[in-house]
Amino acid sequence: MLRFESDYMEGCHPAILRRLQEINLDKNVGYGLDPYCESARSKICQACGTPDAQVHFLVGGTQTNMLVIDAMLRYNDGIIALETGHINVHESGAVEACGHKVMPVKGRDGKYDIDALEQWLKAFYEETTAVGIEHYVMPRALYLSHPTELGTLYTRRELMRLRELCDQYGLYLYLDGARLGYGLMAQGGDLTLPDIARYCDVFYIGGTKVGALMGEAVVVTNPNIELTRGLIKHRGAMLAKGWLLGVQFDTLFTGDLYLKISRNAVDQAMRLRRGMELKGYKAYIDSPTNQQFFVMSNNKMEELAQKAAFDYITPAGDGHSVVRFATSWATTSEQVDALLSLL
Amino acid sequence: MLRFESDYMEGCHPAILRRLQEINLDKNVGYGLDPYCESARSKICQACGTPDAQVHFLVGGTQTNMLVIDAMLRYNDGIIALETGHINVHESGAVEACGHKVMPVKGRDGKYDIDALEQWLKAFYEETTAVGIEHYVMPRALYLSHPTELGTLYTRRELMRLRELCDQYGLYLYLDGARLGYGLMAQGGDLTLPDIARYCDVFYIGGTKVGALMGEAVVVTNPNIELTRGLIKHRGAMLAKGWLLGVQFDTLFTGDLYLKISRNAVDQAMRLRRGMELKGYKAYIDSPTNQQFFVMSNNKMEELAQKAAFDYITPAGDGHSVVRFATSWATTSEQVDALLSLL
Amino acid sequence: MLRFESDYMEGCHPAILRRLQEINLDKNVGYGLDPYCESARSKICQACGTPDAQVHFLVGGTQTNMLVIDAMLRYNDGIIALETGHINVHESGAVEACGHKVMPVKGRDGKYDIDALEQWLKAFYEETTAVGIEHYVMPRALYLSHPTELGTLYTRRELMRLRELCDQYGLYLYLDGARLGYGLMAQGGDLTLPDIARYCDVFYIGGTKVGALMGEAVVVTNPNIELTRGLIKHRGAMLAKGWLLGVQFDTLFTGDLYLKISRNAVDQAMRLRRGMELKGYKAYIDSPTNQQFFVMSNNKMEELAQKAAFDYITPAGDGHSVVRFATSWATTSEQVDALLSLL
Amino acid sequence: MLRFESDYMEGCHPAILRRLQEINLDKNVGYGLDPYCESARSKICQACGTPDAQVHFLVGGTQTNMLVIDAMLRYNDGIIALETGHINVHESGAVEACGHKVMPVKGRDGKYDIDALEQWLKAFYEETTAVGIEHYVMPRALYLSHPTELGTLYTRRELMRLRELCDQYGLYLYLDGARLGYGLMAQGGDLTLPDIARYCDVFYIGGTKVGALMGEAVVVTNPNIELTRGLIKHRGAMLAKGWLLGVQFDTLFTGDLYLKISRNAVDQAMRLRRGMELKGYKAYIDSPTNQQFFVMSNNKMEELAQKAAFDYITPAGDGHSVVRFATSWATTSEQVDALLSLL
Repeated sequence: MLRFESDYMEGCHPAILRRLQEINLDKNVGYGLDPYCESARSKICQACGTPDAQVHFLVGGTQTNMLVIDAMLRYNDGIIALETGHINVHESGAVEACGHKVMPVKGRDGKYDIDALEQWLKAFYEETTAVGIEHYVMPRALYLSHPTELGTLYTRRELMRLRELCDQYGLYLYLDGARLGYGLMAQGGDLTLPDIARYCDVFYIGGTKVGALMGEAVVVTNPNIELTRGLIKHRGAMLAKGWLLGVQFDTLFTGDLYLKISRNAVDQAMRLRRGMELKGYKAYIDSPTNQQFFVMSNNKMEELAQKAAFDYITPAGDGHSVVRFATSWATTSEQVDALLSLL
Repeated sequence: MLRFESDYMEGCHPAILRRLQEINLDKNVGYGLDPYCESARSKICQACGTPDAQVHFLVGGTQTNMLVIDAMLRYNDGIIALETGHINVHESGAVEACGHKVMPVKGRDGKYDIDALEQWLKAFYEETTAVGIEHYVMPRALYLSHPTELGTLYTRRELMRLRELCDQYGLYLYLDGARLGYGLMAQGGDLTLPDIARYCDVFYIGGTKVGALMGEAVVVTNPNIELTRGLIKHRGAMLAKGWLLGVQFDTLFTGDLYLKISRNAVDQAMRLRRGMELKGYKAYIDSPTNQQFFVMSNNKMEELAQKAAFDYITPAGDGHSVVRFATSWATTSEQVDALLSLL
Repeated sequence: MLRFESDYMEGCHPAILRRLQEINLDKNVGYGLDPYCESARSKICQACGTPDAQVHFLVGGTQTNMLVIDAMLRYNDGIIALETGHINVHESGAVEACGHKVMPVKGRDGKYDIDALEQWLKAFYEETTAVGIEHYVMPRALYLSHPTELGTLYTRRELMRLRELCDQYGLYLYLDGARLGYGLMAQGGDLTLPDIARYCDVFYIGGTKVGALMGEAVVVTNPNIELTRGLIKHRGAMLAKGWLLGVQFDTLFTGDLYLKISRNAVDQAMRLRRGMELKGYKAYIDSPTNQQFFVMSNNKMEELAQKAAFDYITPAGDGHSVVRFATSWATTSEQVDALLSLL
Repeated sequence: MLRFESDYMEGCHPAILRRLQEINLDKNVGYGLDPYCESARSKICQACGTPDAQVHFLVGGTQTNMLVIDAMLRYNDGIIALETGHINVHESGAVEACGHKVMPVKGRDGKYDIDALEQWLKAFYEETTAVGIEHYVMPRALYLSHPTELGTLYTRRELMRLRELCDQYGLYLYLDGARLGYGLMAQGGDLTLPDIARYCDVFYIGGTKVGALMGEAVVVTNPNIELTRGLIKHRGAMLAKGWLLGVQFDTLFTGDLYLKISRNAVDQAMRLRRGMELKGYKAYIDSPTNQQFFVMSNNKMEELAQKAAFDYITPAGDGHSVVRFATSWATTSEQVDALLSLL
């Protein structure tokens, strides 16, 4: 079975496993206070161009979203997300479990329609100010994914506009980078890590989907966001052997490994896309990253499913469906070729 | 200033105040264990035709919604509401403060479009079952208001269909009756208190907006919903002098007072509507209850605002707006006539 | 049956009921934005000598404690209370329901042993700083009741020392004044309302037990504590007809009514105490306020229970028990005389 | 520097790392639905003699305690723990973050004094039933650690008595087995894994401290406890690459590896203890497990601290302190000998 159903099906990059092997019987202090975490933090700050940022290593994406959002919001604060945003639909209410409301707005191609968002904010503040804001969940942060759930990317100009909107309405800007590497290495993407660090108040660099066994690195550039160690422990999210995360990110941020292996996923995705377009399949959306969405006849889909695993997304009408193939840092040319040979 | 901006601007029906006066210096046990609460519970059960229902008296509507929903939901359960539902937009995230997600769906005229809801549920279960329900907030209850936020009513047949849908998908059906009396006495409404008790798992009979100083009577007909006294206290919602609520509901449910005074609000609303239609104003929606919505030119609106208070709702285009006038159990013919004379 | 089992068994002072009667059919804006609340806030600020304090009116004591504490604490913050503190044992976990830990310490006579508390704080900070404070709930506030659960009082000097300790350890000082009037009017008590406002960051003036139908007035003197209207609504605690609370506190803070009626409770308690001591009963604790605790033989207790209601507190050994009699603003000399005649 | 300050300073048993290496580039389904988790569950059920138990793999101990307790409690339920219990003092209020109160009681040698506990329960129910249980946090579960925080063990007879108490008072019995292996292999311990599974409603088998990189295996034997996958996700605790936990526990429960490596820690601890006793040090408590507590002069302590790391616990008076040395599955004879040579 060829497996393309997600980008977190393998373990980790071999260089990480080697280092874990090397230090396996060394004794380390716990809870992220070890030298590996220290070194990884320093390298990440350097890569982001933000020497004073706080960096925390957490185990998974939902946990990270939950904690960052809990650190940003209070009282009747809420966070704006797309209706299709990961925190709104795929995290089992983890944000609400911390007492906060996700405020869904409509988007396009997995991204905010910034003009529409601006109108929505304007109307929301007019209404709530008139009635009395105490009756409303008031937005205090804006959540976006980059790359998005549909593999698309924000441009530098778009992120700047979102930053301006956030400044205007007193919102924190939070970028979920579960697949950040695949966005940074996409052709045509113009957002760099320092750009993201400059425009966002907080974001995370995904490890689970980009080369690590597990782990996400949260970068807090706005010191008003107190993502404290106490809060992390309070939500059961502090890893005892924190150096396991430190070693992984230290490896990924040594010699551009994070970007190099991200590049592979993008390259393989582009090969897959070109191959499929040659065979006459139509892309459902123009994704320059590791997730590729195609329209496929239901017959073909069922036939393919005998030999390859992929994600069913949604009906496309007329006996067709949208399906998703995800590549990863570990995807090989052979795997993509084998998939293409089935199509 | 003539005031029609809401239906909870007066104190309480004089009969209630008389009884509070009579017993003011009597000594009563606290926390709702007094004979007045006992008597009121019994009268409410009788009026609902549900001798075994549990009845709790709470102070306000948001508190009541929060507690009922907290009692119904657990883990990653959510509650479905209209996008315009009170719990979704006007309660400052009180449901989320208890850790639960409100799941908004689109409606029409303040009501569920039941066919659309059925499709939504079907699609939701198909998707989530395929992916793994643990990643989703799963609906466990359905919230509706009757009368709705737009003054409209569900029919008996509609409530039966919602009940069937709830049975099919394992949902509790919860009816927010903040203005229930005004629905029960509306012309053309065919839902009775026993109907509501039969089709819903839990609902509340509003007092704050219908004759009481404060107070809502929650009626739990499904014994699986454990709205315990401990939970009420746990959320800071147990009134020390619980008899204050008992006396009020006991008075309202003696000799049909609740229905009689509700009738007045509806009658005055109908007089207002006929008067306005005679003057050429167009109803924005066909509401048979105490809230009346009209389209009015912005000029007229500003002029009227000098002498009367009412609610601005939304722009209606072309220099017009939608405005709301609310009558109550205490509204007099003189007040309505005075308002009409300004129009 | 003579009833002395608690101090919240009657309705409200007749002057309050008169005013509620007078304005019953007036129309008021909701949610505490009415002129009665405004006037009451102003009178309370004046009585406290704190023109800039924020004053909120809430319905009950547990709700008030829950909200004030939720406003003070964040992340892994906790609040110190006596083991016997109301929030620790009698509020059904309402503080924990908001995600915060109550940190119990031992006291004496219902009060903090300030030397012991100082030692406890010192030891706690030494241990937690050594291990890493992120593993601990860290105290951020100190809770005390005045009068205490045992009717005792803090002196001005004691409150000053607690203030100093709080300053030293970065704690908010919060005083629960459910029975505050009875403490202010106690003989020998030297703490005034302005003292309390000066030394505490936040406190509340109890209405439910001191003359009101219901209601507590929270006074926030430290502007860093953001007890916002949004938070109040978020926890389901905002009363729709907020003026009901405003009118009550406005009445109580007009012409010293609050203090005058508190005085009555204390006077009757003192009469009761003297009477009982003359009959040979021994006070269990030296309470100068409206709660009086005595040691009584179990035989006498059972006999008395036929004709009078009171609270059983705890065994006293040797066939005796500790019992409590509570007077209130409404207790009459006749009631006390009748009780004494049974003893 | 010789390091004996905790038992989670190394990575994992080499056999685990080998297997992670072998399967590193295989593709697995996520979220614990992989064959490794399946196999590990089956082996654990067999080792526990409970074929129908539910087994969940979680990442860490605080997370596990938080989730198990959240699954057991509702409304105003609480969980009883020792004052020194891990959930009460070392988990940063993670239980309270889920809305539940930890109810501390006094113990002895890190264990419940079962007679005292019985008295406490009896008195608690008498008081609360008299006053009204809705005002109290009511215990619904009992938490214990085995081995305890002081390295001591419960006997089979003691666990049976706790089970009886729990049955009598309607409590779930929950055993925190963060160091369970070290208890199972202790000399003189008579509790087996099947015993624990029989007497407890839920418990966990610690991996983080016993041979794994990270991970705890929760075993739920009482089907009334719904520790659902949805709840795990709702609290941000579902590991994307769940097979990482499955592989580890599958390895540990193949060929008794878990017990064998636990045995090493106990053996080294006993060697350390005998060696120290020969040198005249006195054990602070009689611990048969991997944590050894000794009384040491402060001078010696400071001298030793130059060359060895260990835990300071508490003052012992007279210029002495209590210190702790922890061995682990990875501790070697050479390390213990080197430590002894410094003493």
